[in-house]
Amino acid sequence: MTAAVQNKTGKPFKRILLTGAAGGLGKVLRERIKPWADVVRLSDVIDMGPAGPGEEIVQCDLADKQAVLALLEGVDAVLHFGGISTEKPFEPIMQANILGVANLYEALHKAGTRRVIFASSNHAIGYHPVTTVLDADSPTRPDSYYGLSKVFGEQIARYYYDRFGIETVCVRIGSSFPEPANKRMMSTYLSYDDLTELLRCSLFAPRVGHTIVYGMSDNDSTWWDNRLASHLGYKPKDSSAKFAHLFPDSSEFPAKDDVTTMYQGGKFLLDGPQY
Amino acid sequence: MTAAVQNKTGKPFKRILLTGAAGGLGKVLRERIKPWADVVRLSDVIDMGPAGPGEEIVQCDLADKQAVLALLEGVDAVLHFGGISTEKPFEPIMQANILGVANLYEALHKAGTRRVIFASSNHAIGYHPVTTVLDADSPTRPDSYYGLSKVFGEQIARYYYDRFGIETVCVRIGSSFPEPANKRMMSTYLSYDDLTELLRCSLFAPRVGHTIVYGMSDNDSTWWDNRLASHLGYKPKDSSAKFAHLFPDSSEFPAKDDVTTMYQGGKFLLDGPQY
Amino acid sequence: MTAAVQNKTGKPFKRILLTGAAGGLGKVLRERIKPWADVVRLSDVIDMGPAGPGEEIVQCDLADKQAVLALLEGVDAVLHFGGISTEKPFEPIMQANILGVANLYEALHKAGTRRVIFASSNHAIGYHPVTTVLDADSPTRPDSYYGLSKVFGEQIARYYYDRFGIETVCVRIGSSFPEPANKRMMSTYLSYDDLTELLRCSLFAPRVGHTIVYGMSDNDSTWWDNRLASHLGYKPKDSSAKFAHLFPDSSEFPAKDDVTTMYQGGKFLLDGPQY
Amino acid sequence: MTAAVQNKTGKPFKRILLTGAAGGLGKVLRERIKPWADVVRLSDVIDMGPAGPGEEIVQCDLADKQAVLALLEGVDAVLHFGGISTEKPFEPIMQANILGVANLYEALHKAGTRRVIFASSNHAIGYHPVTTVLDADSPTRPDSYYGLSKVFGEQIARYYYDRFGIETVCVRIGSSFPEPANKRMMSTYLSYDDLTELLRCSLFAPRVGHTIVYGMSDNDSTWWDNRLASHLGYKPKDSSAKFAHLFPDSSEFPAKDDVTTMYQGGKFLLDGPQY
Amino acid sequence: MTAAVQNKTGKPFKRILLTGAAGGLGKVLRERIKPWADVVRLSDVIDMGPAGPGEEIVQCDLADKQAVLALLEGVDAVLHFGGISTEKPFEPIMQANILGVANLYEALHKAGTRRVIFASSNHAIGYHPVTTVLDADSPTRPDSYYGLSKVFGEQIARYYYDRFGIETVCVRIGSSFPEPANKRMMSTYLSYDDLTELLRCSLFAPRVGHTIVYGMSDNDSTWWDNRLASHLGYKPKDSSAKFAHLFPDSSEFPAKDDVTTMYQGGKFLLDGPQY
Amino acid sequence: MTAAVQNKTGKPFKRILLTGAAGGLGKVLRERIKPWADVVRLSDVIDMGPAGPGEEIVQCDLADKQAVLALLEGVDAVLHFGGISTEKPFEPIMQANILGVANLYEALHKAGTRRVIFASSNHAIGYHPVTTVLDADSPTRPDSYYGLSKVFGEQIARYYYDRFGIETVCVRIGSSFPEPANKRMMSTYLSYDDLTELLRCSLFAPRVGHTIVYGMSDNDSTWWDNRLASHLGYKPKDSSAKFAHLFPDSSEFPAKDDVTTMYQGGKFLLDGPQY
Repeated sequence: MTAAVQNKTGKPFKRILLTGAAGGLGKVLRERIKPWADVVRLSDVIDMGPAGPGEEIVQCDLADKQAVLALLEGVDAVLHFGGISTEKPFEPIMQANILGVANLYEALHKAGTRRVIFASSNHAIGYHPVTTVLDADSPTRPDSYYGLSKVFGEQIARYYYDRFGIETVCVRIGSSFPEPANKRMMSTYLSYDDLTELLRCSLFAPRVGHTIVYGMSDNDSTWWDNRLASHLGYKPKDSSAKFAHLFPDSSEFPAKDDVTTMYQGGKFLLDGPQY
Repeated sequence: MTAAVQNKTGKPFKRILLTGAAGGLGKVLRERIKPWADVVRLSDVIDMGPAGPGEEIVQCDLADKQAVLALLEGVDAVLHFGGISTEKPFEPIMQANILGVANLYEALHKAGTRRVIFASSNHAIGYHPVTTVLDADSPTRPDSYYGLSKVFGEQIARYYYDRFGIETVCVRIGSSFPEPANKRMMSTYLSYDDLTELLRCSLFAPRVGHTIVYGMSDNDSTWWDNRLASHLGYKPKDSSAKFAHLFPDSSEFPAKDDVTTMYQGGKFLLDGPQY
Repeated sequence: MTAAVQNKTGKPFKRILLTGAAGGLGKVLRERIKPWADVVRLSDVIDMGPAGPGEEIVQCDLADKQAVLALLEGVDAVLHFGGISTEKPFEPIMQANILGVANLYEALHKAGTRRVIFASSNHAIGYHPVTTVLDADSPTRPDSYYGLSKVFGEQIARYYYDRFGIETVCVRIGSSFPEPANKRMMSTYLSYDDLTELLRCSLFAPRVGHTIVYGMSDNDSTWWDNRLASHLGYKPKDSSAKFAHLFPDSSEFPAKDDVTTMYQGGKFLLDGPQY
Repeated sequence: MTAAVQNKTGKPFKRILLTGAAGGLGKVLRERIKPWADVVRLSDVIDMGPAGPGEEIVQCDLADKQAVLALLEGVDAVLHFGGISTEKPFEPIMQANILGVANLYEALHKAGTRRVIFASSNHAIGYHPVTTVLDADSPTRPDSYYGLSKVFGEQIARYYYDRFGIETVCVRIGSSFPEPANKRMMSTYLSYDDLTELLRCSLFAPRVGHTIVYGMSDNDSTWWDNRLASHLGYKPKDSSAKFAHLFPDSSEFPAKDDVTTMYQGGKFLLDGPQY
Repeated sequence: MTAAVQNKTGKPFKRILLTGAAGGLGKVLRERIKPWADVVRLSDVIDMGPAGPGEEIVQCDLADKQAVLALLEGVDAVLHFGGISTEKPFEPIMQANILGVANLYEALHKAGTRRVIFASSNHAIGYHPVTTVLDADSPTRPDSYYGLSKVFGEQIARYYYDRFGIETVCVRIGSSFPEPANKRMMSTYLSYDDLTELLRCSLFAPRVGHTIVYGMSDNDSTWWDNRLASHLGYKPKDSSAKFAHLFPDSSEFPAKDDVTTMYQGGKFLLDGPQY
Repeated sequence: MTAAVQNKTGKPFKRILLTGAAGGLGKVLRERIKPWADVVRLSDVIDMGPAGPGEEIVQCDLADKQAVLALLEGVDAVLHFGGISTEKPFEPIMQANILGVANLYEALHKAGTRRVIFASSNHAIGYHPVTTVLDADSPTRPDSYYGLSKVFGEQIARYYYDRFGIETVCVRIGSSFPEPANKRMMSTYLSYDDLTELLRCSLFAPRVGHTIVYGMSDNDSTWWDNRLASHLGYKPKDSSAKFAHLFPDSSEFPAKDDVTTMYQGGKFLLDGPQY
C-alpha cells in the first residue's frame, strides 16, 4: 500500500511532486494539478516565484543526488517534467536528463513513491518517417541528444518497474502549445486540457506497470496509435482541426530530401551534431 | 440453406433456442430477443416459470445427450448461455460446461442448425495482465476451471466450423450487470442494451465463420480491442463513464502482489484450486 | 519543389489531371475537384462532352504512350480513375490498366509531376474472407484480371516511389454509389462526399510516400482497417447505417459454398475466367 | 526446492511417474527413462506385466480422482502419456483425457510435484493446412475430439503454471513409430531416440515455464518451427530422409478436396463425428 | 487427380514442359530434369537445336495465345523459365513476361495441368535493404520493370490457386551461375545442383498451394529466410563459402549513396527507367 | 569512401582502434585482430604494457572528450570494448559507458570513421524470461545500470546511423570465457574463436547499417535467434555442448522466485540497486 491515503481535504494524494515547474508546461500545470493533492511540491533549477496556497517550493538541480533524495521525501507521486527540453550539446543533456532521471528513480525508490508520470517526447521516435504509424511497441529511433535522453528515461523506468515494481507512465508528448505553430503540429498537437486529462488518467489508473502513451489530442491526422495504452482510459476531447484554417490546402510539397518533413521529429533533426 | 425462412409473422427466425434462460443474463434476454423469432425456446436445468406468448419451455440438463438432441430439434439458431457461470470444482464444471457444450454441438449438427452465439467469458483470458491489450488473436490464458471450460467451448466451436461449417460467434463477456460493482468493471462493463445489440449483430451478420469478440460497452478504459471482429458491425452505445462518480480518483494503488488487480480476471483468480 | 505554385486564383494547383473523366466516378468528381486547381484537365477514351469553365478536354487512349506523354505536360497532380473498371478478358485489361498505368508513370516522371492518387480497388484483395480484417500490410489476393491489374498499378507506384520519389496514394475503393445495392455494400460503401474528402486529404497531405488506404465511409460493419494511413487525416462523415432499412435482419444465411459471400470481392469472383 | 535430490544411486530423480505405460510409446519409454530416476512408477488402466528392477506398477484409471491422488504421492516428475490416443466418441475421450488430466494436475499440485512432460499431439493443430508453418504461438485448431482433449491438456497446464508455478513441457508429438507409414509421416516423423532426447531435455532444463514444442526429428520437410522452444536445447539426431526410398517421387497429386492431405492432421480429420 | 500417372518407363510424369529452354538456366536444366518425365517438352522463342531422346521441341512466342494453348496440351507440369530475364523497356517486358504468363495460366487451366514451378526473381523484392531479412510474407518491392513482371507472375499464380486450385511454387531465384561474379552474389548464390534439387522438391511435394521460396544455396550470408517454405523439404547442399577467396576481406566500404550495394537488387536498380 | 585502403602490407585496414584493450576480452583480442590492419591502436584507462609490433598504445579516459578526439585520428574502424563491464553505482557507469560512448561517436564522426563494432551485452535484455526467445527486434529490458548503459550505446549508434550513416554492429555478448562457469552459461557461451569470427564478419560485411546480433556460439540451448543478422554471414563453429559433463542432469529445479534463473540476465539482476 502506498503511504498516501485519502486525506481530510478529500484530495486523493497528500503530496505530488512536479519537477520542471518553471518550464513551459510546468507553468501550465501548476494550477491544474492542485485538485489532486493537498500539497503540490514544485521544483526547478530556476526561480519559480513564491509558493501559493497548497504549494511547496524546492529549488534544486536534479543532477545533485543529495538534493534529489531530499526532494522526494514524503512524495506520493511524481510528474517529472524537469530537465532540458530542447537540443543541446551532450554533456548538459546528460547532467540534466540522464543523471537527473537516474537520481530521481534512486530517490523515489528510497522514498517509497509508487507512481511516476514521465514527460518523454516524440523525439524518442523522431527518426521514423511521417508515413509510418507507430504504437508503444515500435522501436525507438531518437532524433537528437535530447531524444536519446528521453529513451534513457523510458528505459530506466522499465528497469525500476522490473526490479522494484515502481510504475511509470511515459508520455511521449507531441506539441503541447496554445495552438499549432506549423503544419507538422497539426498531427502532433496536444491541447493543455488533453494533457491535463492524460496526466489524470495516468496518475489514477489502478495499475499502469510500464506504459508508453503518445501525448496527442484527437487530431485528424496522426502518426501514432494509442491502442496499447487503452487501459489508461484516456479520451482526448480536443483536436487540431479547429486550427485547420491556419494551414490551408497547398500544393507546395516539401522537397524530396527535406528531412524536417520526412521524419516525425521535424526541425529537431537539424539541431543536433552537425555535418 | 438454413431451414428457417422469413415467416408469416415477419420475424426473421422461426425458432431460436436460449439456453441458461433462468440465469442472470438469460432472464435479461428472455424478452429482448423475442423480436427475432416466432418462437423462443427456453431451456435451463432449473425452473423457468410458465411459458409466455411465443415461448417454449424445455427444462433439461445439458449433460444429458438425449435430452439435448431433442432440445435442438427445429431450432434455427442458438444463444448458448447455459452451464455454470462461476468458479466450482472441476467435475461439475466439466459436466455442465464441457460435456454440455459437446452435446450441444453434436445435437445442432444433427439438427442442421447453422449459427451459434456462445457466451464465452473474459475468464478465458483472465491471466493476462491488465496492462496488456488483447484482441481475438491473443493466446488464451484461463484463470479458473470456469475459464478453462470457456476455452474448451471456443475450441469445439472452432472444430465444428472447420469440420462442418457451423458458424459461431464466441462472445467473451466482460461484466454485464446493471452497473459496475467495482473499479475493475469500469473497464469490463457491458450494458444490457449493448449485449442485446451485440447478439443481434452476431445473429444476423451474413457470415461470421468462427469469430471471437469481446463483450464490452464503449468504456473509456479497456483491455480489449475488437478490431478483428469489425465485420460484425457491432457499435456499442453505452459506456461505463456515467458511473465514474462511483469510483472517484484515488491514490490507493493496489499492493504489488495483489493478483486480483494485476490480472484481467479479477477475483476469479482466487476462487479456483487453492494453495 | 513542385512546379505548381499558389496561383492568382488562390487555388492550390495550377493544373490537375483527372483520367477516366467519362466514367461513373469521373462524372461525379468533375465538378467536385474544381476548387483545387485553376485548370482541371479531363481525359477519357470516350467523349466527355464540351469543356466547361476551368476545364481542358483531352480524349486519349492510355495505351498510346505518345498521347499520354502529351497528356501529362504541365500537370501538377493526377487523379487516375482511367482504364477498365469491370472484369474483362485479359488482353483489354492489360492494354487499358497495365500498359495504361505504365505509360502514365513514365509520362509523369518525365513531366515532373509529384503526386498521384490512384483509384485502386477492393478487388486487389477480394479473395480474402469477409471474416478477415485487413490493413495496408495485408498481402494482396486479387479476385479477377481486373483485380490483378490494380495490384500491378499499386506495385508500379511503389517502384516509382522507391526509384524517383514520386508519391502515390493508392485508394482501394469499396463501393462508391449513391446507395448500397446489396448487403455486401453495407460493409464496402463509400459515399461521394467521403470519396471527395479522401481525395482531398490524399492530395494535400505534405508527404504520403507510397500509401495504401481503403476507400470506405464510416460504416458499422467493415473488413478494413485504415490505421496505417492515419497520417492522411481522412475522417469519413457518412455511414451506410442510414440504408440499413433496405436490408432487414434475416436468417437466410448464404450457402456454405457461396463464394460471392465468403470472400470480400463478392460477385467479381465469378466474372473472371470460368471453370 | 523440489523434494527430489541427488540420490545415493547417482540418478537425478528419486521417482518419476510414467502414465500410459502400456501404450505404444509407454512401452518404448519404459526402459529408456530408467537412467533418470531411482524408481520409475508405471501406471496404466490395463495390465503392464510385472514390475522390473527399479519399477513400481500402479494400475489405475486416471478418471478416478482418489486413485490419481495416491498415484502421485512421492513423485518428483511426470511423463504423462496416459489416456486415449486415437479418435473416439466424446464421452470416453472426456473421461480419459480431460477428467484424467484435470485429476493429474490437482494431484501433482497436492503432491508438490514441480515438472510435467505432457504428451500432447499434432492433432491439437491438425486443421492447419500443410502449407502453413506453425510455431508455438500459432492458434490451436484441433482436428478431432482427441485433438480437442489435447488442447484442453495444454490449457490446464498453462493455468497451473500461471496459478501455482508448476512447469509443463507440452510435446506436440508428430508420428513416433519405427518408420514412417506414409508420405505424410515423412514430415511428422519422430524417431524413438529423438523422442527420448526431447523428454530428457524437457525434464532437465532448469526452467521451462509453460513450453510448447513440436515432437519431430530433423526431417527435410516440416510444417513446424521449434524456434520458440530453443531454450530446451533439443537437437534431433535422426531424420525421415533415410526412409525416402519408401515413397518415391510421384506425380499423383492428391485431389483438390482431399482433406487428409490438405491439412496437417491427416486421416484423423475423417475419424471424428461424421456428416 | 492429375492426368499424369506412373508410366511404363517408371518416370513420375508423362510430360513436363520447360519454357525458356534456350535461356541460361533452361540449358542447364534441359538434361537435369529428364529423370522426372517420359517426355520433356522444350519451348523457347528462339532456336533450341534438335530434339534429343525424350524431348519435344516447340518453338513459340508466349505472347501468342493460340500457340500457348497448343503448347500446354498433354502437359502434366510446367517449369516456367520463359520470358525476358534482364531489364528492358516496359512493352517488351509486358509482352513476354506479363502477357506470356497470363497466356500460360489460361492454357494450363484449360489443359488440366495441376502444378507449376515459376521462375520468379529476387528482383521482385530488390528494393529492400541488404540489412533486412525477408521471408515469404515480406511485401514485394520490385526494383525494375523486370521485377514488376515477376510480381505480376506471382500474383496471377495466387489468383489461379484461389480460383481453380492450380498449385504454383514461385522460386525467387538469387544468382544461379557457375560461381559468384561479385561480393553481392556471395549472399544470393544458387548452385545448379541446388536449383535442380529445389525444382525437384517443388515438383513432387504432395501439396504446395501457392508457395514462395527463395532460390539460394546454404550461403554463410543471406538476406532471405525460407522457414515458411519448409514444407517443401528443400535442403541446399552447396554454399558460396567455397568462393570466399575470390572476394577477400576489404575495408573498401561502399559509398553511403551507392544504391547498388544498399538494396538487395544490386545493379538492376540502375538498369530501369532513368532520371 | 573510407580513408582506409588496401595497404602495402596487404592487410585490409590501415588502423583499427580497440578500446578496452586491457580488459578481459581486450587481452584476448589483442593478437587475434592483428591480421586485419597494419596498425592496431590499443586504448584503455589502465596500463596495457608496452606496444608490440604493429601496435600503438594510447592510455586515455573515454570520459575525456579531448583525449577521445585525439584517439580517433587516423582510425578506419573501431572495436569498442572499453568502459565498465560489471555492475557499479550509476555515476561511474555514466562516466565510462554513457559519456564514453557519446565522446566516441562524436570523435569518430569528426574523424570520418565509417564502421564500429560495439561490445553491447545480454544485460541490455536481461529482464526477459529464459523461456522467451528474443531476436534483434525484441524490446530491450536492461537488468542493471550496466545494462542501461549498453542500451544507451545501442541507441546512440542508431542515432549516428540515421543522422550520419555511420554503421555499427552491436554485439550483445553472452558469456565469453574459456568455458561456461555455470549452467546458465551453457546457453550464453561464446568461444573466443567464435567471438573473433563474429567481429571479422561484422567488420568486413560490405554494409551493416545498424545491426544487432547476439554474441553466442552454436549452443544446444539458446534464448536468442540471430535470423535478423544473417546478412553478416556469421556461422559459429563452437558449442557449449562439449562442456555438458560439467553440469550433469539434475532434478534440483530453481526455486520459483529465484530471479537469477528466471531471467536471462542471471546474477546481474541482484547486483544493481538494492531493496
